[in-house]
Amino acid sequence: MAELSRLPGIGARSAQRLAFHLLRQPSERSLALAAALTGLAERIHPCPRCFSFAEDELCPICADQRRDPSLLCVVEEPSAILPIERTSEYRGYYHVLGGALSPIDGVDPDDLRIAELLARVEAEGVAEVVIATNPTMTGEATALYLADALRGKVRITRLASGLPVGADLEHADELTLGRALLGRRELA
Amino acid sequence: MAELSRLPGIGARSAQRLAFHLLRQPSERSLALAAALTGLAERIHPCPRCFSFAEDELCPICADQRRDPSLLCVVEEPSAILPIERTSEYRGYYHVLGGALSPIDGVDPDDLRIAELLARVEAEGVAEVVIATNPTMTGEATALYLADALRGKVRITRLASGLPVGADLEHADELTLGRALLGRRELA
Repeated sequence: MAELSRLPGIGARSAQRLAFHLLRQPSERSLALAAALTGLAERIHPCPRCFSFAEDELCPICADQRRDPSLLCVVEEPSAILPIERTSEYRGYYHVLGGALSPIDGVDPDDLRIAELLARVEAEGVAEVVIATNPTMTGEATALYLADALRGKVRITRLASGLPVGADLEHADELTLGRALLGRRELA
Repeated sequence: MAELSRLPGIGARSAQRLAFHLLRQPSERSLALAAALTGLAERIHPCPRCFSFAEDELCPICADQRRDPSLLCVVEEPSAILPIERTSEYRGYYHVLGGALSPIDGVDPDDLRIAELLARVEAEGVAEVVIATNPTMTGEATALYLADALRGKVRITRLASGLPVGADLEHADELTLGRALLGRRELA
């Protein structure tokens, strides 16, 4: 219970419920979970190319040679890759910064994998860098910093800001609606 | 209580609470509410130009001569105008369709103020129509219909679809993230 309650979102009560669940189930299940956790600790490491998680030498995406090497999508964390993959709208590679610039929290450009990004853009023949940092204060600041650092070297694009699909203008927040207006697109 | 419970979102219990509140307060307050409701019924009418609500001959926006007459923003309902005004990013006029196309619900082009829109675009020297119907199925269908009807006559733009400000990629829905990728914008 002490170990379980260290996990995020799991308090003393949930830890107790989980512990009793583990005790009730066949011991193979607990051993399988233990093996998975041991494997996670021993085998998963940062991918040396994109800095997402890898089990083999490279992560499965970097190892996939059928992707478009001219496209490189920059994300803050590995957890952003899966949602982008699920859209089926992107077929390039990724680069994980490891966070977003935030001087208040002491996160400077040196703390992120920006030098590694610039090196990859040069080395891998990238034609377009898609900046997919979060549309938050720190994510936007990071996008602007990267655009400065990459200017003239490569085409730089940013995920569109605007109204989410299924939204209702009446309930849209001002900032988002303002962006949707400023970023309005020509209908052909 | 019977009259109050006819209002949307007000059930029997809320109606009772409101009625007792009205009984407790000085009678001037109830009379002021009654006067406002009478005024609403007698004085508010559709603006003959944009079909939003007007108290005088034209609504306050159509009556404002300092706006940019080359911009016309098309919305489904008058309730969408206030949020757009609050962004301070738009200085043109509006046109209220009165809904969105929905063949299933029996809403055809003739049921919306589309003929009136086309007439205004011709008569008022509009240079750009900003289609601000909701990013829903019916709103998108309406936007496409309007784009067809207006093609060649005027510049036609659509509010941007994408990630709302403050969003987190990890929790973005697939459709919205897909739109954000497809609609990505060049960072200068």
